[in-house]
Amino acid sequence: MKMLEERIRKDGIIAPGNVLKVDCFLNHMCDVSLFHEMGMEFKRLFKDKPINKILTIEASGIGIACVIAECFEVPVLFAKKAKSINLAGDVYATKVESFTHKRTYDVIVSKKFIGPDDHVLIIDDFLANGCALEGLIDLVQAAGATVEGIGICIEKGFQEGGSKIRAKGIQLESLAIVESMNCETGEIAFREQ
Amino acid sequence: MKMLEERIRKDGIIAPGNVLKVDCFLNHMCDVSLFHEMGMEFKRLFKDKPINKILTIEASGIGIACVIAECFEVPVLFAKKAKSINLAGDVYATKVESFTHKRTYDVIVSKKFIGPDDHVLIIDDFLANGCALEGLIDLVQAAGATVEGIGICIEKGFQEGGSKIRAKGIQLESLAIVESMNCETGEIAFREQ
Repeated sequence: MKMLEERIRKDGIIAPGNVLKVDCFLNHMCDVSLFHEMGMEFKRLFKDKPINKILTIEASGIGIACVIAECFEVPVLFAKKAKSINLAGDVYATKVESFTHKRTYDVIVSKKFIGPDDHVLIIDDFLANGCALEGLIDLVQAAGATVEGIGICIEKGFQEGGSKIRAKGIQLESLAIVESMNCETGEIAFREQ
Repeated sequence: MKMLEERIRKDGIIAPGNVLKVDCFLNHMCDVSLFHEMGMEFKRLFKDKPINKILTIEASGIGIACVIAECFEVPVLFAKKAKSINLAGDVYATKVESFTHKRTYDVIVSKKFIGPDDHVLIIDDFLANGCALEGLIDLVQAAGATVEGIGICIEKGFQEGGSKIRAKGIQLESLAIVESMNCETGEIAFREQ
């Protein structure tokens, strides 16, 4: 999606350690008009899929997912990072390792809100190693629901998450795929799509 | 807002300890078409205010704030709950006590994204004791920005938050104010507005 690539080039900040900061429009400040354009693009990319629910994970995925959900006219379910190890029996739970925060979270959704009739589009802001996405796929499968596709704003194409998920046969669409970036020159290369 | 009151009556679950669970449409599942209607109502209630930014706090406020922001055609800034006590100098920080989680959070926003030119509408899903809102007001004032108003989905009118905030002279609009609720009978009474 050219509009997103241009925005990343203009406003993204490349930091050492292959960190791409887009907190001025994606995950601290939220440019909701951009989110709407992303929603329209996902709607086009998944137009053949019978999507009736969007699943994301707190926190920064929620705003993006909600604006995108308006384009699909479906509700959002957001998975919660549980601080407690006491999980009631009425949730599906999985574990997600966070490299950013160097800890493992229990991630949960209520069994009331997802089941075998659901056709789910998973939405998240970033895809790097794919741990969060694999957790969300686990939750959908535990509920007997169908993963119709995954929509990502920014994929780090030089990390393994994208190829791991595509190898599962799931339709994964990333609106911008960063092939490489250089924190000294500020240069960033996107994969042709 | 009648539509929200009716939805709370229909789908809200009253639990012991004055707990109102609305996780099936507000803060786990998200009914984005309802969020849009709430946005249009806030737009009407704050029509005279020169709002250029919406501020909320992670996690459950983000989705609501982003859909509402589309109605106002402004960006959202969401305050983050910092897990680390190592806060860089480039953030405004405040402390918020959470009664639900029985702990105190550092809540931060980047100094880059809020300043004296900002006219802020604060949005959150719930108002009970008002601690989270007071923290958000602190952050706006620390930045030299103006709080133009506060929009809340559900206020617990029998707790002190609403009167504390209104006593500051801030325009606070709650779309539904619960005066009382009874977990035995399931009855719920709303304040006339």
